[in-house]
Amino acid sequence: MTNSMEKPAVTKVEVGQVTVGGANFVVIAGPCSVESEEHFLITGQAAKRSGANILRGGIFKLRTSPDSFQGLGKDGLAIAKRVRQELAMPIVCEITDPRQIGDFHDIVDMFQVGSRNMYNYSLLKELGQTKKPVMLKRGFSALIEEWILAAKYVTDGGNPNVILCERGIRSFEKVTRNTLDLAAVAYIKQNTSFPVIVDPSHATGVRNLILPMALASAAAGADGLLIEIHPDPDNALSDGFQALDFKQFDQLMDKLSLILDTLNRPLAPTAVV
Amino acid sequence: MTNSMEKPAVTKVEVGQVTVGGANFVVIAGPCSVESEEHFLITGQAAKRSGANILRGGIFKLRTSPDSFQGLGKDGLAIAKRVRQELAMPIVCEITDPRQIGDFHDIVDMFQVGSRNMYNYSLLKELGQTKKPVMLKRGFSALIEEWILAAKYVTDGGNPNVILCERGIRSFEKVTRNTLDLAAVAYIKQNTSFPVIVDPSHATGVRNLILPMALASAAAGADGLLIEIHPDPDNALSDGFQALDFKQFDQLMDKLSLILDTLNRPLAPTAVV
Amino acid sequence: MTNSMEKPAVTKVEVGQVTVGGANFVVIAGPCSVESEEHFLITGQAAKRSGANILRGGIFKLRTSPDSFQGLGKDGLAIAKRVRQELAMPIVCEITDPRQIGDFHDIVDMFQVGSRNMYNYSLLKELGQTKKPVMLKRGFSALIEEWILAAKYVTDGGNPNVILCERGIRSFEKVTRNTLDLAAVAYIKQNTSFPVIVDPSHATGVRNLILPMALASAAAGADGLLIEIHPDPDNALSDGFQALDFKQFDQLMDKLSLILDTLNRPLAPTAVV
Amino acid sequence: MTNSMEKPAVTKVEVGQVTVGGANFVVIAGPCSVESEEHFLITGQAAKRSGANILRGGIFKLRTSPDSFQGLGKDGLAIAKRVRQELAMPIVCEITDPRQIGDFHDIVDMFQVGSRNMYNYSLLKELGQTKKPVMLKRGFSALIEEWILAAKYVTDGGNPNVILCERGIRSFEKVTRNTLDLAAVAYIKQNTSFPVIVDPSHATGVRNLILPMALASAAAGADGLLIEIHPDPDNALSDGFQALDFKQFDQLMDKLSLILDTLNRPLAPTAVV
Repeated sequence: MTNSMEKPAVTKVEVGQVTVGGANFVVIAGPCSVESEEHFLITGQAAKRSGANILRGGIFKLRTSPDSFQGLGKDGLAIAKRVRQELAMPIVCEITDPRQIGDFHDIVDMFQVGSRNMYNYSLLKELGQTKKPVMLKRGFSALIEEWILAAKYVTDGGNPNVILCERGIRSFEKVTRNTLDLAAVAYIKQNTSFPVIVDPSHATGVRNLILPMALASAAAGADGLLIEIHPDPDNALSDGFQALDFKQFDQLMDKLSLILDTLNRPLAPTAVV
Repeated sequence: MTNSMEKPAVTKVEVGQVTVGGANFVVIAGPCSVESEEHFLITGQAAKRSGANILRGGIFKLRTSPDSFQGLGKDGLAIAKRVRQELAMPIVCEITDPRQIGDFHDIVDMFQVGSRNMYNYSLLKELGQTKKPVMLKRGFSALIEEWILAAKYVTDGGNPNVILCERGIRSFEKVTRNTLDLAAVAYIKQNTSFPVIVDPSHATGVRNLILPMALASAAAGADGLLIEIHPDPDNALSDGFQALDFKQFDQLMDKLSLILDTLNRPLAPTAVV
Repeated sequence: MTNSMEKPAVTKVEVGQVTVGGANFVVIAGPCSVESEEHFLITGQAAKRSGANILRGGIFKLRTSPDSFQGLGKDGLAIAKRVRQELAMPIVCEITDPRQIGDFHDIVDMFQVGSRNMYNYSLLKELGQTKKPVMLKRGFSALIEEWILAAKYVTDGGNPNVILCERGIRSFEKVTRNTLDLAAVAYIKQNTSFPVIVDPSHATGVRNLILPMALASAAAGADGLLIEIHPDPDNALSDGFQALDFKQFDQLMDKLSLILDTLNRPLAPTAVV
Repeated sequence: MTNSMEKPAVTKVEVGQVTVGGANFVVIAGPCSVESEEHFLITGQAAKRSGANILRGGIFKLRTSPDSFQGLGKDGLAIAKRVRQELAMPIVCEITDPRQIGDFHDIVDMFQVGSRNMYNYSLLKELGQTKKPVMLKRGFSALIEEWILAAKYVTDGGNPNVILCERGIRSFEKVTRNTLDLAAVAYIKQNTSFPVIVDPSHATGVRNLILPMALASAAAGADGLLIEIHPDPDNALSDGFQALDFKQFDQLMDKLSLILDTLNRPLAPTAVV
C-alpha cells in the first residue's frame, strides 16, 4: 500500500543482545514498580519463561499524588542490578531526573523516559550525550509531530538509539484510561526511522483489553510490546488493575505468536544480556 | 483472558444472505458517494471480485458545508436498486431523515446511520419500528456508553438487528482525521451482544494508514470492516483522499485473509442478496 | 484591539419584541423540561421578575438513555402556549424533528436546535424555509468552523435570523460536564455577523460555577445568556444539578447588571411578546 | 451563590512587594523571551507605565523543536538582574531544570514552572525546599485534580507560596492554540486556597482574542493575568503572533480597570521590588 521505496530505513536498536526494529518482534515485560528483590526476581523469571525478551521495572515512580508510593529509589537500583545478572536478561527502567544518569548507566540496558517527561528537554538532551538506548514514551497529549521532535532532542546529541513507545492519548472517553492510537504507530513506521513499540497496559488501563490490543498492535506493524505483569495484580503497590498475572501473560504470548508467524515477524529469542 | 462464560451471546445480523457477527468476517466496500450508475457498477464489481460481501454507497450525503456535493438523492436510489440487482449483492446506504425510510426500505439491505446522526433519536426510534438491519456509526465524540444507549433506542422499538461501527473519535491529534479507538471494539465485544465493525477509512482519513488499521481491527476482534474504494480516488466527488483504488483494495484483502485464517475467522463467502 | 472597521455588522434578531444582537444584553431563562403547567408558570414568573427577557422550556427532550424522561411532548406544547400568553413573554423551545415545525410554528418565538442536532442538516434546511429565529447550539465537539457552516444551512435557505449558543465542548476534564469555550464567543463576534449567547448551565454542569461563568461570558462579549432555573432543583425531572433556584438566579442577575453597566451593554427591558 | 463559609481562605503570596491573592488584582507582563538587554528594558518600562505589577521574561525556553531559539540562557540571567534593579519591579522567569535553582534564586522574585513541566515532580519537590513563590502553570492536558496535586508536591515540601496559572488546555478546536478553561479558575477559587491567574496569550494564541479573554478572566474571579507583550510582535524571536504591542496592552489595561472597579478588585499599585 505504501511505497516501500520511500520508507526510511528502520534504526536497529540493540538492547543488550536484543535487537529492536529488526527482523524479530520484541516483548518487554515486568512489574509497574519493583516492590522487593523476591518480587522482581519471580516476575522476571515468569516473563522470561513465557518468552519476554527484556525486563522492565519501575524504581523511581512518577505519581500524580505525593502521597502515593514513589518507588524504592536507590535500593531498587541495587535489586535491579542483581536480578538482571541472575536472569541474564536486559533491563529497562524509567529515569526521572538527569542527575540519575550516572547511577543508572551501568545497571540498565535502556533508559525509559515516561509520558510525563516527554517534554523534559533537559533530560532528553543529556540522554543524547550517552550511547545507551532510550525508550521514549509519547506524552499522553502529545501530537505525533511533537513526539518525533522530542526524539530529535536525543538524536541531535549524538545518540541514535531511540525507540518510541505509544501508550495511549488522553481523550473524552472514560471506559479506558487512555485512547490507544495505533494509527500513530503505522504513521511513524511509514514516515520515520524510529522503531515503535506499544504499551497496551497503560493505553487501556483495563486488564481484559490488553490481549486484544496487543494483537492489534502487532497487526498494525509495531516492533514490540511493553506489558505490565505481576504475581498478584490485586495486591500490587501500583496500577495492579492493568497488570496481567503470569498465566494471563502466558496466554497472551501464545496468541501473539500465531499472529506474528502470519506476519513473518517471529518473536525474538529469549534474551541474554 | 476474559471469561467467555460471562460474554453476552453475539446477535447475528442477517444482511441479505450475509451474516454479521457469526463465524465469518465480513467486508463492506464501496464509494463514499454514488456518482453515476456506471461509477457505482464498476466499483461494486471490483469490490465483489476482491471478496467484499456487502456494497456501500452514499446517496444522501451529510456535508459540513452547504456548498459541498450533497449526493444524487432520489436519482441515486434508482441507481442503487439496479446495481444491487445486477451484482446480486446486498447494499447499505446512509439514511439522514426518518422520512426517507419508505423510499429506502425496499432498496437497501441495511440502513446506515452516520456519525452525525448517532444522537438523532427520532430517526433511531423509527428505525426500531422496522426489522431491517441498522449499522449505527459511533458519533465522533460519543462515549462508548452513549453509543450503546443509542443502539438501545433501536432495539427497544423491537428491531434487534443493530451493528455498531467504530469510525474514529475526535482528539487533539492532527495527522489523522480522527483517532481510531480499537479498545472500544474489544470493550463492546466483551460487554454487549452487538456485532462491531470498523471503518478505517474515516478513522484515519489517510490512504496509507487504511491497510494497517484494517489488519489491526481484525486482530482486535472486530466482526468486519467498512472500506471506501473508488476507481479513481484523486477525482472522487467526496473524500477521495481516504479511498483505496481497486488494486490497493485487492492487496488489502489478500493480507487480511492471512490474518483472518490465523484468527479462525475466515472471510464470509462472496455475498448474494 | 480588533479593528472595528473589519468587523461584520451584527445581525439583529427579533424574538418577539426582544432584540438579540442589539444594544442590550438578553437573558433567556427557564426550566430544562416543562414538567407541568403550574411548574412552568411559576418558573416563568420568577424568571420575569428577576429580569429575564425570554422564557425557555424543553418539551421534546433528547436524552442519552431511552429510559430517561423524554419530555411532555404535545401536551407540553399546549402548556407552553398558555404560559406564553399569561406572561406575555417570548418563548424558545427545542425542536428535535423537522416534522414538528408546523406544531411549533405558532407557539414558539424561536426554535432551539440542540447540541446533538447541530449536524442535522435536514432539520436546519427546513428551518431555513421559515422566518422564525433559530437558536443554534454548538455541537459539543463541533469545530467553530463547522458550527458557522451549520448556521449557513439555515441562512442559505433564506432565514437570516440565527443566534449561536456556546454551551461547552467535550474535553478530557471531568470536574465540569463540558469545557466552556469563551474564546469561541469572541472569535465569532469578531469574524461573523451572528449574535452569540452562552449557556453556562450545560457548559459547566455545576451549580456553583454558573454565576462566575455568566459574568465571564458578558465580559467576553456575548450578546446574552441561557440559564436553567427551577423552583426546586433537587427534585427536577432532568438536569437539576445544573439549575439555579429562584433566589440564586436573582443574585446572578444583580451581579450581572453591574458588569453590564460597565460594559455599556445594559440588560434588555423585561420582554413582551 | 457559593457558600462563602465553606470557601478555603486564599493564601496570599508575596512576590517582591506585590501580593497575589489579596485585595488587589495583579498583572504580570513581559516578552515571551528576553532577546537582549535593551529589548527587555524597554518592554519592562512599557509594562510598568501601563500599570503592570510584575515583569516576566523567558531565559531558558522549552521549544518543541531543538532547532528553535532556546533562549539566552545564563547571559539572560545577568540581563534580568540588571533590568529588575533598573525598574525596581519584581520579576518572574521560567525554570526548566532543578539545577538552575541556585542561579535563579537571587535574581527572580518568583519561579515559573511551565506547562510542559507540571508533571516534573523532581523539580517541584526541590522548589518546595525554597521559600520563593512558584507560579505553576497547568499542564495543557492536566486534569484540575492533577494540577492541584502537583501544587501539593511544592507545598508538602514546606513552601506554601504557590500560585496556579490557567493557560488553556488541548482540545480538538483549531482556531485557538488551546482552549481557555475559565471554569477551572472558578472551581479552584471555590475549592482550594491557591491564588489563580490566567494567561490569555498562550490560551488563545490569537492576538485579537487576548483582550476579551483578559476581561472574562477578571469577571470569572481570577486573581491576576499573565500577558505577553513585545515592542514589535511581528519580529519577535518566539511566539510573536500572541504578543500585544505596547499600545494594545495599554488599551487592555484601561478596559480591565473598569471591570475591576465594578468587581471591587482594583489593580495593585505599580510594583516595587
